[in-house]
Parts: sequence; C-alpha cells; structure tokens
Amino acid sequence: MNDSEYMAQALAEAQKGVGRTSPNPPVGCVIVNGGVVVGRGFHPRAGEPHAEVFALREAGERARGATAYVTLEPCSHHGRTPPCADALIAAGISRVVVAAGDPNPQVNGRGLAKLRAAGITVETGVLEAEAVRQQAGFRSLVTRGRPYVIYKYAMTLDGKTAAHGEGNGPVSGPEARARVMRWRDECDAIAVGARTALLDDPQLSTRGIDGGRDPRPVLFDPEGHIPAHARAIREGAVLVLQEGRRSPLERDPRVTVIRPHSLPHALEQLAALGISTLLLEGGATLASAFFEAGLIDELRVFIAPKLLGAGLSPLVGPTRSLHAAQGLDVWNVERVGDDVLVTGSLAL
Amino acid sequence: MNDSEYMAQALAEAQKGVGRTSPNPPVGCVIVNGGVVVGRGFHPRAGEPHAEVFALREAGERARGATAYVTLEPCSHHGRTPPCADALIAAGISRVVVAAGDPNPQVNGRGLAKLRAAGITVETGVLEAEAVRQQAGFRSLVTRGRPYVIYKYAMTLDGKTAAHGEGNGPVSGPEARARVMRWRDECDAIAVGARTALLDDPQLSTRGIDGGRDPRPVLFDPEGHIPAHARAIREGAVLVLQEGRRSPLERDPRVTVIRPHSLPHALEQLAALGISTLLLEGGATLASAFFEAGLIDELRVFIAPKLLGAGLSPLVGPTRSLHAAQGLDVWNVERVGDDVLVTGSLAL
Repeated sequence: MNDSEYMAQALAEAQKGVGRTSPNPPVGCVIVNGGVVVGRGFHPRAGEPHAEVFALREAGERARGATAYVTLEPCSHHGRTPPCADALIAAGISRVVVAAGDPNPQVNGRGLAKLRAAGITVETGVLEAEAVRQQAGFRSLVTRGRPYVIYKYAMTLDGKTAAHGEGNGPVSGPEARARVMRWRDECDAIAVGARTALLDDPQLSTRGIDGGRDPRPVLFDPEGHIPAHARAIREGAVLVLQEGRRSPLERDPRVTVIRPHSLPHALEQLAALGISTLLLEGGATLASAFFEAGLIDELRVFIAPKLLGAGLSPLVGPTRSLHAAQGLDVWNVERVGDDVLVTGSLAL
Repeated sequence: MNDSEYMAQALAEAQKGVGRTSPNPPVGCVIVNGGVVVGRGFHPRAGEPHAEVFALREAGERARGATAYVTLEPCSHHGRTPPCADALIAAGISRVVVAAGDPNPQVNGRGLAKLRAAGITVETGVLEAEAVRQQAGFRSLVTRGRPYVIYKYAMTLDGKTAAHGEGNGPVSGPEARARVMRWRDECDAIAVGARTALLDDPQLSTRGIDGGRDPRPVLFDPEGHIPAHARAIREGAVLVLQEGRRSPLERDPRVTVIRPHSLPHALEQLAALGISTLLLEGGATLASAFFEAGLIDELRVFIAPKLLGAGLSPLVGPTRSLHAAQGLDVWNVERVGDDVLVTGSLAL
C-alpha cells in the first residue's frame, strides 16, 4: 500500500464523523508500522478526543517509529483537548503524512512546524482535494464565517423540478432519494423556504440510514406563515424570521429564532449556532435568493429521465445573459438508479 | 473475431451511408472467408447498388463458402436493383448473419426464407438493437409512414435553453456543437419553428465535417412570416405553411411548400418527400407541439455546467402531473467536452 491508499483509509475513518463534529472538522487517522495498520481513529464529535488520540491509543507502543496518516494538519494549540502534535511527538511517531492544512488561524502551519521541529518527517497534500471536500463545512466556518451551502435538487430532462400544482409524485427514483437521505445524515442542517414548508409540510428527516441522525431543520419563513404544527419542527430547529415579524413557533422551546437583516447575515447567524454545512432543498425562490447572493457553493443535481412539458424551475432568478452565466466545476457525473447525478462546485 | 465483431464492422460500413440513402436504409455488408475479410460494402444512396453487391464484387471468387454479415435482411424483391438474396446465393455464400429483419412488407422475412431455401445457414439478431437504431428513419417510414424525429437541445444545469432576449452565446461547448454537426450530417432534414428562424436566422448547415452534406431545412412557419432572404433557404428547403396562408418563399424555386392540416399530416408529407430522419432543433413552441402530439421518438440533450437563473425552457407544453410524465429509456450518458450528453428514446 502506498501513501494515497493509507490516506484513503484515514478519509474513510473521518467519514464516520461527518455530520457529527461541527463546529470541528471530521478527521481520520491511520497509524502504520512496518506495513501494518496498528491504529485507527476518527473524531466523533466536538468535545471528544481527536482522531490522532484514538489511533495512538490503539497503536500503543507500536506507534514508536510508525507513520501517522492524518486527514487534517494535527492541532498545535490547547483547545478542549491537548495538542495532537504533542501527542504524536510523545508517542515516537517518526513520519506524519497530512492531507490538508488546517486553515484555523490558531493552527495554520504551526502543527506541521511543531512536528518538524521535533525531527518528524512531514509530508502534505496527499489526497488533499478529497480531504478539503470532506472538511468543506469546517473550512467555510473558519475562513468565511458561514456554512458551506449545497443546493440539491431533482429535475426532469426538460428542466422541471415539479409539475405545477400539488399532489405530485417525486421527480427522482428511489436510489436517488436514498442518496439524499445519506446527504441529510452528513449535513448539519437542511434549509427550506416557507412555501415548500407550507405546501409539502416535509419532515426533513433522515430515513433508512443505519445510525443516521436528523439534521437541524432551518425554515426560512420571513413573514412567519409556518404554523406551530409543522412536521419539520424538532429539537434544534431554526426559524429565520424577518425583523419585526412574529411567528407561532416563537413559543416552541425547541425552536431557535433568528432575525437577520440579510441572507449573508442569516448564514453568519447559522454559523454562530455551529452549523457548518447547509443542505438547501428548495424551493426555487429561496434557492434563487441564495444563488443571486453568491451563497451556493456546491450543486448536486439529479436529472430524471422524464419529460413534464411544463412545471417549476430549479432557479427563478433574474435574467442574465449566457455570457454572464454562472460556471460550474463538475466533479462527477454518475448514474444513480434511472437518474443522472451531476455534482460540482460553483466556480467563484 | 466473432459474429458480433464482424457485424460491428458491417455497421461501420453502413454508417458511411447514413444520411444519404433515404428513402432506403443505410446498410453495410462484410464477407468473411476463413477468418479473413474478403469483401466490404455499403449502400451509398438510393438508386445505387446495395451493400451486398459491393461486398460480393470485392470478394469475387472468395465469396464461395464464405459468411456474409449484413446489417439488414437482404432484399428478395426486384426494386431499382435485383434481389440481393439471389446475388448471395449465386455467389456461393454458405452462411448469412443478419442484424435486423426488413420490416418492408415486400421483404419482411422473405429474404431470409429465400436464403434458407437455397441451403444457406441464416442467423439473425446479431447487434440487432444497434442496427435498428441506425435504420430508425427507414423503419419509421416503412412502418409508420412518417420520419423518425429526434429532438436535440442544450440546456444549462438549471434547465434553461437560453437566456431571455437575444444576443446570447451558445449554451453548450465546442465539442457538443461539433457533435451536433455530425448529427446534421446524418439526418435527412432539420426542423425549426418560425420564431427561431426569425430571431436567430440560422443556416442549419453542416460545418467542419469532412465530406459532410447539409440536411434539408424544414421551416415550420404556419403564418408565413419568414422572409425571402432567410439564410436557411437552399436547394431542398421545405416550408410548412398553414392552409390559406401565403409566404414570399413560395416563389423561390428551391423551396417545396406543404400545407398540412395537422402536425401528423405534416410528417406524412415530409415522408412523401423522402425525409426519413428529422432533427428537431427548436424552439420550444414547435418542440412542445411535437411532444404533445407524441411525435418525438428520441432525445439528445446536452446539459451544460452553467446556471442562468432565468431563461427559456426546452418544453413549454401544458402542465401534466409527474404521474403522467413522459418516461424516457436512457441509452447513454456521456461527457462531451464540459457538457453531459443524455441520449434516449421516448418509451411510447
């Protein structure tokens, strides 16, 4: 096995924490001695030990002279836990391979410097792109003070997200809907607009995922139309109201109400609540507001092999010319059941 | 090499005639003796010899005891040329492998029966789906009396085929546009609606294809708005006018005017002009009329990694529910340059 393959294992470890670690990043660590994996670990949630600590515990004495593969630069500062760089040094690790640097100003190269100063060989940038993508929420919080926003939608091959009116079946197939459940499990929060909440009364929950947990529902309801009995309301729900507006949900102790003066401000307030990844599920009015404000980072689009002829659009923003169209950096195109999934980032 | 591989060669031969043989089908033939290809041929255009004749000519004496791979059942009737079944028998071919039967009522199994009656081993159904697709125009003419209709469009990832207004760049990239030129070369005719013809004044020609030829432009202009100087007008142009309407193009000797009483009737009239494949290039109004009448057979959709926010839709038909959405049998999903191409047939 080479460095990339061990790092892929560390990323798989980290993946177990995705959606559970905010405001911390998901991190994984694999310790290899003489070609044998002697320790593995991941950061399970904020306040609990970091990935390196679990991996070092498992490795014990076998950490001496070993290589540690870590998906994020080991921390160098005392947070809720002691610095991982110190722990790696104390355990006698001789080489550390890191996927991505930690943009946190308290770390930002200091972890690597500390390791090098202790005589440890340090290599960086192994599977960096994958790691950065896995840590997108954390990195967004640290560098931009707002969550990483993913707009997910399903549309027909003629570009319609739904037929006009209500009582329609889903656009995408069961495999695509199962994939969405996995994404919900991985994101800190799901956002929907008032019209979607009123028309569909969605639960916004994770179903059919072993050990899945529900993301926080974030309801953008500027005028306070969503009723007290909305099915999405649960512990951790966030209601986004316009300044000066009231809502029956304000009395619900499970609901946090924020009153931002703008969409960027709303995202700052969500970041302050520890939300690092926001899965935007519609409708088009809310998504278009995000889009026009330049606040969508990633798209995940299911294209269903169906034609509707007429219907709703995934975006309804103001007209722009094709020269001014927002470009997308497509990461992946794959078949998911009968649908096609296109994933990419908005090239900003 | 096995039967499928030789048949793939025969299909590649046939491909050389695609777009040139109407109302005949494109057909290819490969003759193999002792594992060596001794003859190849394709039908170049109506009135010229069939594929088998060219292949037999090249094979000469080596046809004796050989296997002939033919993409379509050899003909058994005297048309403009003598029956190919007779020619194969006379040449001493001992085995004939056929991709697809000929639905023409004058053949329809008689070619195969004739071969078998002469003691030739006959096998059928090798790469049948590929052959049927290649012969789609011919088969549509014979079995339905109308051309095979392919709706081609390019849309952004938010389902827009163009920005509102004029003066926009193309939606898809250069690789996708080159692919469209190949399709134009392969189709008998291109159809556009009056608005598209007026707004864009397209040439509807094939550019950048070695040995390419221009398809016949078919302008659906019910009210006769398209002016005499439209760039698409050339030899073979067809103007589709409403009954009772006049057009300045009626005086152009290069233009054939038809006055159908309905869209199905228009397609019958185009079939009578020898048009077997029609590439529908828009706009949405014309495409929606075809769609609502159930007259679209195949879709070729480029999805460009761009977001417009607002714009035109590929179909603007009346609302239907998702339960009543038209399903698509997706044949292929591929990346073409930066775009994604989805190809499929409308499951009728």
